[in-house]
Amino acid sequence: MTKLTQTVQKGGCAAKVAASELHQILEKVTFPKAHPELMIDGRFFDDAAVYKVTEELALVQTLDFFTPVVDTPKIFGKVAAANALSDVYAMGASVKTAMVILAYPNATFEKQWVVDMLQGISEVVLEAKGNVVGGHTIDDDTLKLGLSVTGFIHPNKIWSNQNAKPGDLLILTKPLGTGTHTAALKRQQVTEEDIVDVIGSMTQLNNVSEILSDTEKDFVHAATDITGFGLIGHGLNLAKASNCSLNIELEKVPFFKNTFQSLENGFLTKAHRSNKDYALGFTDWSRVSRLQELLVCDPQTSGGLLLAVDPAQAGALLNRMTSKFSAAAIIGNVTPYFEKYLKFE
Amino acid sequence: MTKLTQTVQKGGCAAKVAASELHQILEKVTFPKAHPELMIDGRFFDDAAVYKVTEELALVQTLDFFTPVVDTPKIFGKVAAANALSDVYAMGASVKTAMVILAYPNATFEKQWVVDMLQGISEVVLEAKGNVVGGHTIDDDTLKLGLSVTGFIHPNKIWSNQNAKPGDLLILTKPLGTGTHTAALKRQQVTEEDIVDVIGSMTQLNNVSEILSDTEKDFVHAATDITGFGLIGHGLNLAKASNCSLNIELEKVPFFKNTFQSLENGFLTKAHRSNKDYALGFTDWSRVSRLQELLVCDPQTSGGLLLAVDPAQAGALLNRMTSKFSAAAIIGNVTPYFEKYLKFE
Repeated sequence: MTKLTQTVQKGGCAAKVAASELHQILEKVTFPKAHPELMIDGRFFDDAAVYKVTEELALVQTLDFFTPVVDTPKIFGKVAAANALSDVYAMGASVKTAMVILAYPNATFEKQWVVDMLQGISEVVLEAKGNVVGGHTIDDDTLKLGLSVTGFIHPNKIWSNQNAKPGDLLILTKPLGTGTHTAALKRQQVTEEDIVDVIGSMTQLNNVSEILSDTEKDFVHAATDITGFGLIGHGLNLAKASNCSLNIELEKVPFFKNTFQSLENGFLTKAHRSNKDYALGFTDWSRVSRLQELLVCDPQTSGGLLLAVDPAQAGALLNRMTSKFSAAAIIGNVTPYFEKYLKFE
Repeated sequence: MTKLTQTVQKGGCAAKVAASELHQILEKVTFPKAHPELMIDGRFFDDAAVYKVTEELALVQTLDFFTPVVDTPKIFGKVAAANALSDVYAMGASVKTAMVILAYPNATFEKQWVVDMLQGISEVVLEAKGNVVGGHTIDDDTLKLGLSVTGFIHPNKIWSNQNAKPGDLLILTKPLGTGTHTAALKRQQVTEEDIVDVIGSMTQLNNVSEILSDTEKDFVHAATDITGFGLIGHGLNLAKASNCSLNIELEKVPFFKNTFQSLENGFLTKAHRSNKDYALGFTDWSRVSRLQELLVCDPQTSGGLLLAVDPAQAGALLNRMTSKFSAAAIIGNVTPYFEKYLKFE
């Protein structure tokens, strides 16, 4: 049987256009002045947008799609859904509607695969208490799947990436390593069974906002989800947006079993390099080993949330999260900006 | 210089997966029970969805993307935007937010083309008084571009496709023929200059709802926009949803100059066939010539709106529309369902 990952050249979020290239392109486009209702502008393609509807309600909107990272169609549907919904959760919002983005080679694909992918999406959107409300499907050379998602949030309760404060502690909810492990899968060097922990993580909802009480949610000052640009790229975006520096203790960063072995074996993607290039001038790398560098540059598909939280509450918040996110860990802290946005210890 | 249409095999909405195949697939997916707030369910992929937020506000959501139908990047951006926004206008709503869906071959594409495409989108979304709030971009073998769009509407003012009433007159706002003319462009048998009327129509917003007064809008009972499934496919969907028959007078259907010549020359797409197959059992074709059959099956990119309107007001509504939609015409009427959903005279 044909394996989904063998039908494409580039897998998952590794197929994203590099952040630095996107910024170059977007700088040349003249966008009109935004409506005053647009509270958070996603035009730089790396955050969900927030659009205020009333004093009590804002829309959180995001869109994500990619080529297959796993071989089983239903699992791919689940990963694509969890990955797209994650951006809504990263703003502290709840999921309401989702539209499917689907492109596949109609002549060669079994219809059952399409059914299975959509079934996977349907189940994950249901788990998120959302609705699949439509979508668009085209006949294309290679499979791509994703969602356009809308969530609801109170305008005063948004977790943006602009509000990390010096003193905050950093929590990462999921292990790193999906990039290298799915690269190994694509090269048929491991099976889905070998990386069942990675698959379990990629299909898991990042619904931290549903685990925390309203009071606890206020202790989260900033959040972002870790996807194609890796811990380093998304961490850098959060640090820049908050005008702070992030100190990350490499010993505390969670990763999947065999991740360093997989990196050592050379199961890499183009994004390992482009993510490094993106962060190069902004990062103190002096204490980072070559393999650790690859880990923090590893492009994640449906990766964890990175949260900057009130230090007095970080332990309690972590305890609440570990009931669902068993690998969640405090991985560092926020300081006033000094010399570099990112520092690895 | 490379021409956009020469970089892909299938052009525009003709790349859509056929409606009949989609229905077969979707029938096998188990979707959960929808929220009661979901007023119009877009899960069958052919309508915008409507989600009620308050007694005064509902969200209208739709998503559309496709391969290039023209060669000039900025024009393609404009067509992709006008086409995607059209689904919001087809519900009678106003446009609020748009997210970009972009896939292109990073290694071979000039960055300026990407800038130009995004600039085209930006200008059309501005004309629609909306905001570009983000998007997602991937490196892919072939160019695809589109938008995920959210509009606002009062829950009591929705133009669905379920409310056409016997006696209503049918108005079509734009000429047919974009499928065959862009097929000819792709085969390099015509230039963009040759089909400047077609391009002008494809980049034009379907903002009928902004031309009509609130009172006039109430005289529109049902609406749909004509895209990849052609007048026949979208007309059939409207007839089925309203449980009526549509009588269409072929002599009155507007089309671009040279359209019959282009069809006669064999500039066709796969969708000409699949659209016919979709409608076959539901249509009285007895008075339709071969070329007329191709015309009503022609897959439209950014085609017009088909409106079922109060017969006493149809003339006045048409007068209002022709200020912006010079080819708009009354093309038929609605009757109680009898024998076939679609009848051509």
